[in-house]
This record gives sequence, C-alpha cells and structure tokens, in this order.
Amino acid sequence: MLSVDEQLEIVQSGTEQVVPLDDLRRKLERSQKTGTPLRIKLGVDPTAPDLHLGHAVPLRKLRQFQDCGHTVVLIIGDFTALIGDPSGRSVTRPPLTLEEVEANAKTYIDQAFKVLDPDKTELRRNSEWLSPLGFADLLAITSKFTVARIIERDDFDKRLKEQKPISLHELLYPMAQAYDSVAIESDVELGGTDQLFNLLAGRELMEKSDMEPQIALTMPLLVGTDGVQKMSKSFNNYIGLTDEPADMFGKVMSIPDKLMPSYFRLATACSLGEIKQIEASLEDGSAHPGKLKRRLACEIVALYYGDEAATAAETAFDRVFKEGSMPKDIKEKTIDWNGELNDAGKVFLPALMAKLQMASSNGEARRLIDGGGVKLDGQALPAKSYELDPLDLKGKVLQVGKRKYLKLG
Amino acid sequence: MLSVDEQLEIVQSGTEQVVPLDDLRRKLERSQKTGTPLRIKLGVDPTAPDLHLGHAVPLRKLRQFQDCGHTVVLIIGDFTALIGDPSGRSVTRPPLTLEEVEANAKTYIDQAFKVLDPDKTELRRNSEWLSPLGFADLLAITSKFTVARIIERDDFDKRLKEQKPISLHELLYPMAQAYDSVAIESDVELGGTDQLFNLLAGRELMEKSDMEPQIALTMPLLVGTDGVQKMSKSFNNYIGLTDEPADMFGKVMSIPDKLMPSYFRLATACSLGEIKQIEASLEDGSAHPGKLKRRLACEIVALYYGDEAATAAETAFDRVFKEGSMPKDIKEKTIDWNGELNDAGKVFLPALMAKLQMASSNGEARRLIDGGGVKLDGQALPAKSYELDPLDLKGKVLQVGKRKYLKLG
Repeated sequence: MLSVDEQLEIVQSGTEQVVPLDDLRRKLERSQKTGTPLRIKLGVDPTAPDLHLGHAVPLRKLRQFQDCGHTVVLIIGDFTALIGDPSGRSVTRPPLTLEEVEANAKTYIDQAFKVLDPDKTELRRNSEWLSPLGFADLLAITSKFTVARIIERDDFDKRLKEQKPISLHELLYPMAQAYDSVAIESDVELGGTDQLFNLLAGRELMEKSDMEPQIALTMPLLVGTDGVQKMSKSFNNYIGLTDEPADMFGKVMSIPDKLMPSYFRLATACSLGEIKQIEASLEDGSAHPGKLKRRLACEIVALYYGDEAATAAETAFDRVFKEGSMPKDIKEKTIDWNGELNDAGKVFLPALMAKLQMASSNGEARRLIDGGGVKLDGQALPAKSYELDPLDLKGKVLQVGKRKYLKLG
Repeated sequence: MLSVDEQLEIVQSGTEQVVPLDDLRRKLERSQKTGTPLRIKLGVDPTAPDLHLGHAVPLRKLRQFQDCGHTVVLIIGDFTALIGDPSGRSVTRPPLTLEEVEANAKTYIDQAFKVLDPDKTELRRNSEWLSPLGFADLLAITSKFTVARIIERDDFDKRLKEQKPISLHELLYPMAQAYDSVAIESDVELGGTDQLFNLLAGRELMEKSDMEPQIALTMPLLVGTDGVQKMSKSFNNYIGLTDEPADMFGKVMSIPDKLMPSYFRLATACSLGEIKQIEASLEDGSAHPGKLKRRLACEIVALYYGDEAATAAETAFDRVFKEGSMPKDIKEKTIDWNGELNDAGKVFLPALMAKLQMASSNGEARRLIDGGGVKLDGQALPAKSYELDPLDLKGKVLQVGKRKYLKLG
C-alpha cells in the first residue's frame, strides 16, 4: 500500500484547490492506521447525455483515489437535476423531465465506468434521501444557512445585480447537494473549480450537523481543442467519450502543443513519474512535440477503447492526415468572389454552399456548419462560422460530411 | 340580505387597503347571484399566548364579513409558527416548540371566538396541508417565486443592507403562508398593514396555480393607550382581551380623546350608521367627549363580557375614579424638592420612592413603574417614567400598588 505522502502527491496532482489540505493528510493517516478506506464523493447531475474529456477529469481523479485503495461514492443527481445546478448560470435552467434524467443517467453511468473501478464504486441516486425529505426536514436544513451566504456566490450576485431573475428554488440547490454529503458521510468531495461553493456548502452542513466535515477538492476545467475556451459542447471544441477511436485520436492531434502537459495530467492514466518525465522533456526541448502528441492521443484512446483500438486509430490517422487520403479527383469550381460579397465585404458561406449544391438550403448549411460537418482543407469550421473572408475560402477544398468535396477556385 | 354596495361599505370601513377593490365588488356580486358565501382567510401564527384589542381588529373585520353572510377560514399557523413570520423583524425569530405553539393556539382560539361567529367559521391548522409537502412539491412552489421578489420586502432588504443575518428558511415563510391560500381557496385574505407583502404573495401563488386570485385586505394597526405607539405588549400600552372588565373599562377611559373614532371603528361592534353619527357629533362639537368615551368603554367591555359586566365595570370605575374612593386619611409628606433635583433639574422618582419607603429599593421602584403599578392622582405612570419634573409631582397623591398612598407636599 502507498504511504500517505505518496497518496497525497498522487491525489494532489493537477488539482486546483484542496480545502483544507491539513485535514486531508489527517484523514489519509487515520484511514491507513485503521484500514478504513476514505469515502470520495462525486455528484453529477445527468443534465446532458454525452460526456467529454472535460467531464472525465474528476472521474480520473476518483480513479486515482481508488487506486490508492479508497471508495468512490458516485451520486447520480436524479433529484437535484430537477432543480438544476445554478453554478455559473446566468439564467434559470429549464427543468428536465424524469425520462430525460433517467436516459441521461444511463449513458452517464456507462461512460463513467470506462474510467472508474466498479469494485470500488458505490453508485447512488440522490432521490434516495432527498425525495423523502418533508417540509419540516427542509426547514431544519435551510435554517442552517444564511441568505447572504447563498447569494454571495458569483453567479447569483451577478444575476441579482443585472436584475436577471433567480428562481427561489435555485437557492435550494446548494443545500440539497450539501445534504448528499451528509447522507453518504463523505470524506472528500470532488468537483470542477466552478463547484467550490457547492463543495464548501457540503462541508458547512456536515459541520453544523455535528459530523466530521468533508474536504473540498477542485479540479481545473480542461481547455478544449481550440486551446482557448473550456471544453464544452456549446463551443464545439470537445472530445466525446463516445467519439469513434479515429475521431478521438484526430481531435487530440488537433490540440495546440501547449495543452499537452495538462492533457497528460488530467486526461490520461499515466503515472506521476511518467508525467514528470514528459513535462521535463518538453521543458528542456528533448521531446519531439509531434511524437508526444501522438503518444497522448494513443494514451487517451487506449483508456476508453483499449490498446488495439488505439493502434488502429493511429494507423487510420496516418492514412488520412499524414498520407493525405483526400480523393485525388476533387473538382474545382471557379467562384465570382466579388459577386458573393455582402456589405461587410464577407462571403455568406451557407448561401454559397446552397448555390454550389453542397447543401440543400441555407438552413441546412448552417446546421451542417454548427454540427462541425463542414471542413476547409480538412479543418472543421467552428459553429456559427457563417461569414468568412473570401481569402480564407479561395483555393481551399470545401468538404461537407464524408463524401462531398469541392475545390473553390 | 345586504346589497353589494352595503356590504362593500361595511367591509371597507376602517380598512387601510383593498387590493384590488374592483375584484372585491365582482366577487361580492357573484356571491350574491349564486348564493355562495365568500371564503375570508385570516392566518395567525400562535407565537404569543395573549391577545389584545390590536389583535382583535382583523377579527372584528372578519365578524363583519360573517354578518354579511360570508364564511371565515381561520388558519392557525401551527406549521408556519415553526418558521416564524419575518415580517417587520430585524432578527430571526427564535423557534417555538410544538408544545408552546399548541398552548398558544388554544388560548388564541378561545379568545378569537369571543369575536367570531362559530357557525360561520371554518377552523383549520396549516400543518394539515404544509406538513405532507415533500421536497418535490416545495420545488414546484418555490420555482414560482423569484429571489428578487422575496428579498425586496422592507424587512429583508433592511437586514441584508445592515448585514444582519437572514436564515434561508425565513425565505420560505411568505411562500408557505401563500400556499395556505391555495389550500383553502380563499377569496379574501385579511391582515395588518405589515402583512401586505404576505397577502400579495398568496394572490400571486394562486394566480400562478391557475386559480382565481384572492383579494388582499389590510387593516391599520391600532394605536395603544398612550396615543403614540401601536398597541403592543412591549410598549405596555395594551388592553388585553382577557383583562378583567373593570381593568378593561379603566384602560379604555385612559386613551386620548383623539383615538375615539378609530377605536369605535376598529374595536367595537357599533354599526356603520352609529359610527358615522358619533364621528359627526365629535366634529360639530355636539358630543360630550367624556360621555362618549364612557360609551366606548361600555361597548368594548360588553363585546367580550356582555352588557351586565359592562355596567358593573362602569359602576366600579365611577366608585374609584369619579366619586374618588381614595382613602380619606392620606398622609402628606413635605419634600425638599430642591434637594431632590439632579443636574438636569429633574427628580429621579425611583430614588425618591425608596427614600419615602414606597419601594424597598431603586430597582424595585423601577420595576413597579415599568409594570404600571405607580400612579399619580390615580393615573398610572407609563413605563420608564423615571425622571420627572418636580411640578408634575408636587401636591399629587403618589400611589403604589393598591394600598400605599402618600401626598407629596
């Protein structure tokens, strides 16, 4: 079994904050002395069906705790999803139906167990303890929090100042998920940096319920493939956990070099020793960034599909992108660029696509662009890229889906 | 049966606000057409054991609705009392125990039925519908209110600005009592002026629950016997509903003349016709204020104890105050007034009382004054009357309790 110092080094790797760190050491020491695993909580609201590498960051951290011998309590927030986590939101979430929540929960669990060790995971749904709570119970819980403490959070404060409505039920969210910690007697709770307030509310409620309070451990948000925004479906810069191996491989290869260390740390199963070596080799210039990125892509694909799939994905990648597998016989079409310019001197791509019969209508063209299905010289256009400079189009291969190619003359 | 116009005149008499008045007319018209009584709600949290004439003001108004043929739904807030109405509060109320709530509820009901017609009263406890509410129900209800709407109330706004804590559960109060209106399908809800926010929350929740919304009717706060502050136990200016008839009579006789019209309107069962006559006679100077006050005192005592008790109380009052039943043999003590003056040129009465052996100590003297047990020429001193002008004392009979008299020379 690993020493407390070794465990501390592993579980702190890549974390943003551990509050308070001293208590984590004490808990790990006691756990080792008594042979009792710590209970590591992650609460997830199944509000979206598909997970991406960003969602997998805390799952990876949970796995590290498991590899140190601890128990993960994965809480499916089937009840809290009905409220909707207001963290970082500027508007009230639309409520989900029970059916949506259940369907999302199912895919979430399938995907989460690609990372977690099922033998060391306790899977719970928070409707189990939240749904039976009556009004009197809720009064007892809410009386432990002050309004000021709840509305001081950035997201609420901002909405109040901007006079955007906050629904009263949203104030119950932090308290409901805090009660999860009480119900499962958590030792450590994980979350993204945007979850710190919620995690500390759990700590506070446990203390006020005369329990040993949990430790809050936050993980940084993974930056998306664009190298700028956090990974998110809405920015179309994500790598889905259910992406095909070849897609996943290709998307990892498209990230900027500077993201490699954080991807190794947050998204792979590489050991701390390996990661330190990689970081050192990048710093002293001894590493070949392209080769390293290839290794990163292999590590990530292998994690979700196994080594064989990773090798196959690499081969496929080489065929398409390295050997250049675009059709040899792409037609070229000469465009009257001046005729395509709007008042702002830009080309409205959806209209051009419709005119070139690469899409059946402007509307379809917009949907294709937003869905990432339109590429220029093999690079997918970001969502909402409707108005483009003619210089960015002329001479390039416009690709729609897997089969339609046209060189813009 | 009274016409809608007559009913409107009666129920509007003495009210502060009816929101909205047009809807009240429509409801009364429909009630008359269909022969269905309106449901008039009053919610009371049994947070204190004893009622006074101030509490009786809305009860009197309910009785007028009953006399017009409508049904009163008196809600004992046994559940909401556990939260505590934050209206007008600058601190969180200390929670009451179930036993205290039940004991207070019992005395409240006994006293309320001195005013209400039991045959036209539906007595309910709000634990009946609030206690079974689960977390999911509460989410549905709270989602209908915005945080801004709740914290804009004066009392919350003030506490937030002054950084005084508001407990999260206090935000649930307006919503819980609003749900009472939904549960009992109220047509009109009564309250003091400080309740307007709560009454309108009820109106809002009914509307958002696709029900015909209730009308909010507020009654002014009754001014206490001092003629300055609202009637309240803490100002020691109240007339309790369980005060002995003679006490009640005497206290009414002690109010300033200017309060008579509002007392006739808010605290007696006089008809609107009588009240108008009284007001006219006061205005044109044809009334004898002393006689009128005597009638007021009789009306009020008769309301709670019957006509006979009222007559007896008047006789007793005459014996003591009119015929002057003070002992004939009161000793006179010459005081060295200059020796009693403090820096401000005032006499510190507690010290004088102790010196004259009318009290065992300054502290006891203060307590006697605060308790209303010290009189000058038969008039009880208000609480905290410690420093007095010597001219207000010289030549008067100082009376402590029922037996100690001394003429101050």
